[in-house]
Amino acid sequence: MADKKLSGAGLRGQSAGETALCTVGETGSGLTFRGFDIQTLADNATFEEVAYLLLKGKLPNRAELDAYITRLKSLRGLPEALKTVLEQIPADAHPMDVMRTGASMLGNLETEQSFDAQQDVADRFVAALPSIIGYWYRFSHDGVRIEPHTDDDSTGAHFLHLLHGKAPSQLHADAMNVSLILYAEHEFNASTFTARVCASTLSDLHSCVTGAIGTLRGPLHGGANEAAMEMISGFDSPDDAERGMLGKLERKEKIMGFGHAIYRESDPRNAIIKKWAEKLAADVGDSVLYPVSVRCEEVMWREKKLFCNADFFHASAYHFMDIPTQLFTPIFVMSRVTGWCAHVFEQRANNRIIRPSADYTGPEKSEWVPIEQRD
Amino acid sequence: MADKKLSGAGLRGQSAGETALCTVGETGSGLTFRGFDIQTLADNATFEEVAYLLLKGKLPNRAELDAYITRLKSLRGLPEALKTVLEQIPADAHPMDVMRTGASMLGNLETEQSFDAQQDVADRFVAALPSIIGYWYRFSHDGVRIEPHTDDDSTGAHFLHLLHGKAPSQLHADAMNVSLILYAEHEFNASTFTARVCASTLSDLHSCVTGAIGTLRGPLHGGANEAAMEMISGFDSPDDAERGMLGKLERKEKIMGFGHAIYRESDPRNAIIKKWAEKLAADVGDSVLYPVSVRCEEVMWREKKLFCNADFFHASAYHFMDIPTQLFTPIFVMSRVTGWCAHVFEQRANNRIIRPSADYTGPEKSEWVPIEQRD
Repeated sequence: MADKKLSGAGLRGQSAGETALCTVGETGSGLTFRGFDIQTLADNATFEEVAYLLLKGKLPNRAELDAYITRLKSLRGLPEALKTVLEQIPADAHPMDVMRTGASMLGNLETEQSFDAQQDVADRFVAALPSIIGYWYRFSHDGVRIEPHTDDDSTGAHFLHLLHGKAPSQLHADAMNVSLILYAEHEFNASTFTARVCASTLSDLHSCVTGAIGTLRGPLHGGANEAAMEMISGFDSPDDAERGMLGKLERKEKIMGFGHAIYRESDPRNAIIKKWAEKLAADVGDSVLYPVSVRCEEVMWREKKLFCNADFFHASAYHFMDIPTQLFTPIFVMSRVTGWCAHVFEQRANNRIIRPSADYTGPEKSEWVPIEQRD
Repeated sequence: MADKKLSGAGLRGQSAGETALCTVGETGSGLTFRGFDIQTLADNATFEEVAYLLLKGKLPNRAELDAYITRLKSLRGLPEALKTVLEQIPADAHPMDVMRTGASMLGNLETEQSFDAQQDVADRFVAALPSIIGYWYRFSHDGVRIEPHTDDDSTGAHFLHLLHGKAPSQLHADAMNVSLILYAEHEFNASTFTARVCASTLSDLHSCVTGAIGTLRGPLHGGANEAAMEMISGFDSPDDAERGMLGKLERKEKIMGFGHAIYRESDPRNAIIKKWAEKLAADVGDSVLYPVSVRCEEVMWREKKLFCNADFFHASAYHFMDIPTQLFTPIFVMSRVTGWCAHVFEQRANNRIIRPSADYTGPEKSEWVPIEQRD
């Protein structure tokens, strides 16, 4: 992405504030949430524990986690007015536009009246975003009005249940759990920074999340796993992938899912999701997509010293769970909403409006010419 | 607003990019759009000319302006699905939540498929945003489904026409015209910066505008004219206002509509809108609200050397045109959407993803404790 060498462009390397939530790319620990290494969390935690950690500041004990899960389960339903809105959105809409509109509409119906309510609004988002995308998808694609409540304990299983109309296997629930943990938080990335800029005017949490969804929608940010899926699904064997990748490199085509704006040597999330992609491949008896993905990784490292980022093996992992490609980025939203909300809480706790300056490159002084005398 | 003295907080004074659109607070010219002084534009231009200047890069000649106005008039209608969405939003919703949701929904129905379409999407926003808020307001408050097409040449007259069910007087149309010019653009303010951060991921224009609306909603940014209205409507004479203001200052209450993050000595927009507020006061035979506003200005300058910003006299001006206070910030949106879109075009033309860093203040390393052993 660093394709232009401009001094200070994109605020790269400039501090725009403080956070206690996350480190990215620090020596010795590639990615930490409140000091916990991402590998530790992926090996031991549930997504709901990580959400609690990010939003409430500490790991929950058993009673707290049980109460939190019960609470999230109770918040999965959607108001009738929101369902009606989702039913107005055509089947060929961009699913991120659906997420953005659903989040915004929720703000009309359940407006955050005071910052004292921020934890409640965040919990509601964690619980309701899978229902929003699930309701729209099933209505627009299958013509059914689903009941967006399920009794699944985990957010990932709830989503898969709504999508497929039945509770997922334990393997799928576990894989989704890890995926949601990996995407939950990533410091001042563009969507999170959008949420903080919005929060800095003391706007409401629905506005912050709505804006963040719109920013994550961009292909330079959230769309990489979808682009990776499109690419790997075009190859029918590892050798075909090797030929295809070399051709793309020769033609200098953009290849998504590799490299990172911050990480320099590897993305610590890649090794984790790669293992899950391998397990899921074995489960479905895949002998193409996973080996193709591995070969792509090898070629990019050999030819360009570019490593897979979190998105690349997510593509095949999601595909093995029968998730439509266009829903990959909405899953990112279901997870990252925890990080966004936690950053909004931080911004509010020590706020100054985020209002940078610009270098002016326009005309010094323009003279008014009456309209009848203009060229 | 600069209530915390933090080094670099809020990116104050730091350049976050380049723009040819606007200067704010430069010596000798308080505010310029593409080099034109704001006073010159307010004295001579129509809002549609200024929109053309910002969006298309030059002042239009007569034929171009006529074609542009014809085009904007043709784009005022709303799709049935969007009307249905607006009808789902309750009367007590925050009107900025309505604007945000309307803009987002439009993106589902008229998705920007390519950046080649960006001028069309921007024109559509300029034409349709007054219709969106007008349709919702009249439906939710008066129970009528209005036809959001009118034949008024100006955006300001169109909005007043929808709101009041009849074409406005020339004076009101002229006052709205100037108001929309004054609010059209203001460099890297927080909502515009939000639009640029969103644009930097190469997201679509509906996402950028939706995010910007959410940021403008915050009381530190767009809500100041509403807060000013609430304050001045509580005073029944200039002397009452003087006593009230002194009391507020003594109690260190926040007083909105004064001072500015960038301007140090005056806001060049204030003198302009103040004159229009005076004309509108004479027109309605007001002998309270305008004199009260003048006294507030005198007291704040005498006691605190704080000047009125653009928002303060907008409050009484809008009130004299019988505009409900809760619609003040949506008018800001109708105007500033031109600046937001023009900034998105600039960002896209020379893009690098906006991704700053953060200073980490959290725990160095956290040790995992199994859930049954947690406090």
